[in-house]
Amino acid sequence: MAETRVAILGASGYTGAELVRLLVPHPGLTISALTADRRAGEEMGDVFPHLAIAKLPRLTKIDDVEWDAVDAVFCALPHATTQTVIAGLPERLKVVDLSADFRLEDPDAYRTWYGEAHSQIELQKEVVYGLPEFYRESIAAARIVANTGCYVATVLLALAPLLKSGLIAADPIVIDAKSGVTGAGRAPKEANLFAEVSEGFHAYGVGHHRHMGEIDQELSKAAGQPVTATFTPHLVPQNRGILASCYVRGDAATIHAGLAERYEAEPFVHVLPYGKVPATRHVRGSNHCLIGVVADRQPGRTIVISVLDNLVKGASGQAIQNLNLMVGLSETTGLEQLPLFP
Amino acid sequence: MAETRVAILGASGYTGAELVRLLVPHPGLTISALTADRRAGEEMGDVFPHLAIAKLPRLTKIDDVEWDAVDAVFCALPHATTQTVIAGLPERLKVVDLSADFRLEDPDAYRTWYGEAHSQIELQKEVVYGLPEFYRESIAAARIVANTGCYVATVLLALAPLLKSGLIAADPIVIDAKSGVTGAGRAPKEANLFAEVSEGFHAYGVGHHRHMGEIDQELSKAAGQPVTATFTPHLVPQNRGILASCYVRGDAATIHAGLAERYEAEPFVHVLPYGKVPATRHVRGSNHCLIGVVADRQPGRTIVISVLDNLVKGASGQAIQNLNLMVGLSETTGLEQLPLFP
Amino acid sequence: MAETRVAILGASGYTGAELVRLLVPHPGLTISALTADRRAGEEMGDVFPHLAIAKLPRLTKIDDVEWDAVDAVFCALPHATTQTVIAGLPERLKVVDLSADFRLEDPDAYRTWYGEAHSQIELQKEVVYGLPEFYRESIAAARIVANTGCYVATVLLALAPLLKSGLIAADPIVIDAKSGVTGAGRAPKEANLFAEVSEGFHAYGVGHHRHMGEIDQELSKAAGQPVTATFTPHLVPQNRGILASCYVRGDAATIHAGLAERYEAEPFVHVLPYGKVPATRHVRGSNHCLIGVVADRQPGRTIVISVLDNLVKGASGQAIQNLNLMVGLSETTGLEQLPLFP
Amino acid sequence: MAETRVAILGASGYTGAELVRLLVPHPGLTISALTADRRAGEEMGDVFPHLAIAKLPRLTKIDDVEWDAVDAVFCALPHATTQTVIAGLPERLKVVDLSADFRLEDPDAYRTWYGEAHSQIELQKEVVYGLPEFYRESIAAARIVANTGCYVATVLLALAPLLKSGLIAADPIVIDAKSGVTGAGRAPKEANLFAEVSEGFHAYGVGHHRHMGEIDQELSKAAGQPVTATFTPHLVPQNRGILASCYVRGDAATIHAGLAERYEAEPFVHVLPYGKVPATRHVRGSNHCLIGVVADRQPGRTIVISVLDNLVKGASGQAIQNLNLMVGLSETTGLEQLPLFP
Repeated sequence: MAETRVAILGASGYTGAELVRLLVPHPGLTISALTADRRAGEEMGDVFPHLAIAKLPRLTKIDDVEWDAVDAVFCALPHATTQTVIAGLPERLKVVDLSADFRLEDPDAYRTWYGEAHSQIELQKEVVYGLPEFYRESIAAARIVANTGCYVATVLLALAPLLKSGLIAADPIVIDAKSGVTGAGRAPKEANLFAEVSEGFHAYGVGHHRHMGEIDQELSKAAGQPVTATFTPHLVPQNRGILASCYVRGDAATIHAGLAERYEAEPFVHVLPYGKVPATRHVRGSNHCLIGVVADRQPGRTIVISVLDNLVKGASGQAIQNLNLMVGLSETTGLEQLPLFP
Repeated sequence: MAETRVAILGASGYTGAELVRLLVPHPGLTISALTADRRAGEEMGDVFPHLAIAKLPRLTKIDDVEWDAVDAVFCALPHATTQTVIAGLPERLKVVDLSADFRLEDPDAYRTWYGEAHSQIELQKEVVYGLPEFYRESIAAARIVANTGCYVATVLLALAPLLKSGLIAADPIVIDAKSGVTGAGRAPKEANLFAEVSEGFHAYGVGHHRHMGEIDQELSKAAGQPVTATFTPHLVPQNRGILASCYVRGDAATIHAGLAERYEAEPFVHVLPYGKVPATRHVRGSNHCLIGVVADRQPGRTIVISVLDNLVKGASGQAIQNLNLMVGLSETTGLEQLPLFP
Repeated sequence: MAETRVAILGASGYTGAELVRLLVPHPGLTISALTADRRAGEEMGDVFPHLAIAKLPRLTKIDDVEWDAVDAVFCALPHATTQTVIAGLPERLKVVDLSADFRLEDPDAYRTWYGEAHSQIELQKEVVYGLPEFYRESIAAARIVANTGCYVATVLLALAPLLKSGLIAADPIVIDAKSGVTGAGRAPKEANLFAEVSEGFHAYGVGHHRHMGEIDQELSKAAGQPVTATFTPHLVPQNRGILASCYVRGDAATIHAGLAERYEAEPFVHVLPYGKVPATRHVRGSNHCLIGVVADRQPGRTIVISVLDNLVKGASGQAIQNLNLMVGLSETTGLEQLPLFP
Repeated sequence: MAETRVAILGASGYTGAELVRLLVPHPGLTISALTADRRAGEEMGDVFPHLAIAKLPRLTKIDDVEWDAVDAVFCALPHATTQTVIAGLPERLKVVDLSADFRLEDPDAYRTWYGEAHSQIELQKEVVYGLPEFYRESIAAARIVANTGCYVATVLLALAPLLKSGLIAADPIVIDAKSGVTGAGRAPKEANLFAEVSEGFHAYGVGHHRHMGEIDQELSKAAGQPVTATFTPHLVPQNRGILASCYVRGDAATIHAGLAERYEAEPFVHVLPYGKVPATRHVRGSNHCLIGVVADRQPGRTIVISVLDNLVKGASGQAIQNLNLMVGLSETTGLEQLPLFP
């Protein structure tokens, strides 16, 4: 089969670079274009020195991409600008969008969480929500897939099957989530300087984080009723990795058995032995998600902890997993690297 | 007033070194003996090079301390050995114990959490539990004070006043706590190596951490009824600092007002403006505790977040605060350093 | 004696915050004004949350400072703008300038290293170069002192006495220096993001770093002949601390004896036992400099390693040491904190 | 061609785990045995949770390996014990030894640097020193290869070609090297605890580091005359990566041209554009070495900086590169991963 030629729009961010790292050795997908409007004309190695040793197309502006040489697009642009860009792409292209722009099915929810109206409401209807473990078949048939957000993927893989099967109550659910710094992107901000992040820990977006809308949508779909979980993100002084500690109502052993069965055949989701807990460092650089289940001291209360690498299973790896499905490749193609530890 | 001469038993651990750092410039307490059985005969600067510039007594064995030159003792020994050591000290000495050995008033609880019988049940009855913000007067009159554990101090300062005043429900309470690595001490263990801790994050002791007994005891006392909170500790790749994210039932604005009023006159506990959250890096090296209160999306649910430096307010600073009270000094003496940031 | 009232110009940077941390408990200096043009009107605690617990004047613009309430100024502004600001200050004020603007005595050298003409050549003549261990008496008599740069202080304390006494050759000297990230300041730059700095190490400014002019000036003065050392700075993933590994020609034991004698009476410079080497973490937060001397395998070649905290002895602590001298206080006043470790 | 079946002796250390990470997807080498005497009977996933998702043989004792199912051995055992183990292996096995035991051709040098006599002097004569870029043909024909040490590989790739071609003087050479913490292995030592390593930087082994013997041997061979470089290692608070700053005599442009030409066809060694310098984070997890050349201010003096990942090109990747050669595979097989950044 001929290789699928892909363009990465927004290649100068961390998810763009991670797509390149994963795609260069990918046997079924070939990079044919890389865009970064502000860095157009430069080599990828100027923007990301660790990629200088790879042979890659020069960065261009989106307007200068030769679409005839492109079969599929990874769109890693900032939210809001993404809507217009995707609406303007040739219709024959497969698209995996890593931004948040098409994740919320309800335009009102988009307005609530992003503060402005969605500009492509018609296009939204066509988009498939992209977590392969739950929407594999729709993704395979989709033209546009909205990649699941990194926090949301961590939470959904832990909780959605439990809500769907009724193994946990829909309320209360407390999700205490922790992310590495790459989740905040590469834009220079005082808050993300080394000296502001290292040797410390804090919560942010408490009570009102944007990912809540996406969590609500998917947990409610899974539960078949409205779910409003408590969700608190925190910043960990590490580059990569998300860990979500989820406090739920339900029997721990039953929850563990349910998750273990649910993910038995999944290549990238692994349920640890009962009572064991995962660490973010043990999935670093890989597309794997690990889930641990532990009983609380109080019967009927359980702690479910899941981890993944926000740049891989939470973003670029998941995006490739989605595109693999969309172009008929084996879902795991190019994604079987083991984690890098230490 | 003559200075109080203090001995530090177990000076070769992190809390011992931190006691030295804080005591050297302390105007009312003077170090007259330092013990470390395995390092006896060495200088403190051999064990902790950052203290080499201070003029300090040489390390000795406990048995070699000249008790005539000692008025008070900080006991920073491992749990279990502590009981016998303290029982054997001259009765005229004031003692602040930084171990967990005398924190649990109920010997059965000690056996449950530490796996063996308490050997000094009579002595236990005399010991005062040592969180100055709650037990100031008893501490001032005590001969032996059991310093509050680092996790526990973080939790109690956030929640005990709320339970006491009935501003939050006694159940459910979910405490998701995160600590820096110094909380694990200086003993060489694979799990605490740089390469095993950096660039990662994980939970530990889930469902069965030893600090639970102490949390139960104090939250129950505050509530006037048995309280069994969910408590999950996590390890942060940072040296110092604990952050506890507490999920409680109660009105956020009322909780904020209640805490703000409760701590208005406290020198070391500060309630942030409503909706603001604290970071561990902003208390580093200081005896201060910061508390933030944020409303959850669901009315009647609130997130209370507290931070402190586990080696200062969670251990050595708190111990000095206790001894200040016990010897009649102003409680804040020697503890007014501002945090070190970055 | 009445306390000296000081203004900090440029209080929103790391050296400004560090001045505040050290000045709040200082018994002879009182903060009467804090400026930060872009943050004027805000509280210091808004800019640096770790200082929120201190009672401090509100931030103002420089133009709004009431100079009648100020006796001395710490100027922590960016280079180039500093010249004009200092030239415009009331002449009765004592000034310690933490920028590089007045460190180079030769205006041509300034032009060479900073790329533009110096605008205050007359004022420059009046300025005293401010490393107290070498210029104590001139500093005490000065109106304006140019605080030594952080890299330069680390190098000079190790090498200047050796060149002065002829214990090492003036050539070759190789200085391989390593600094923590706070040396780069708080301005948001991609290169200083956590994800760009952590888990890595690199050299920068190789062959042409601005501090070379200052190193040349002072080493040449000490040697009594032109000295052109090789100097290569590197970035360490740590917040604070500079370590300079200096490769020189001279006998190691003689060098050690010479430095030990030279610094015997200095309160802040400590020569380690022969063969021992220092670590940056052991001076963190303190005004101390540690120096180690080790023999190379080849006779007549020696490695001298010095460390200090770039924000304290390399900037704000040194500045206070200078002002202590200028206003007649004991030089060590307010600077005797022990290092914070870990 | 049938796959080569390999055993990893000493699989419970970091280089063992890294061999597993690289070998699992390797198309020409298959893991048939893993040994770890103290952890025999356990799964690799018990020792390294990040490898739990791979299907691997259970850990055994060396004595229990079924040698019939093994064609080649990676020996990742501690120095000294290695000599006897390798001497006892079936002679038909290819061996790549990652320890230091067979790197020094001169038994007297071994005794000097390791403090005891070499026990396998005859076997030593048969061993080929294993840096593929310099000894490719001998390695391909060898039965036993002594993998180059991590520091030494970093230094040799930068300097050996320059000495060989006479582009730099044999003296003076100053090598200021910096390594991440995994270089110290996984054994629990106080000095390698997170709290002892993070937020700091120091030199170690100054004047007398064991790697000097190996550096002397290889630089002298390259130069055709005895070379005694100054070599100072430092510890960086990072997991992976070595950077060597080499101060040499020779013309920078000529040196750059010489290195660029020398490595033009090498798959894993890359000379950066003249004046550019490399960072350890840009080779993380890869088998690549990057070299930068910068002119010093003084004509005729040059700074050459090289970086590699100590666990890959400095150990396990290099070992696989060697074994690829020894079994007739393409040298780059299984080693073409791009670096993981951030």
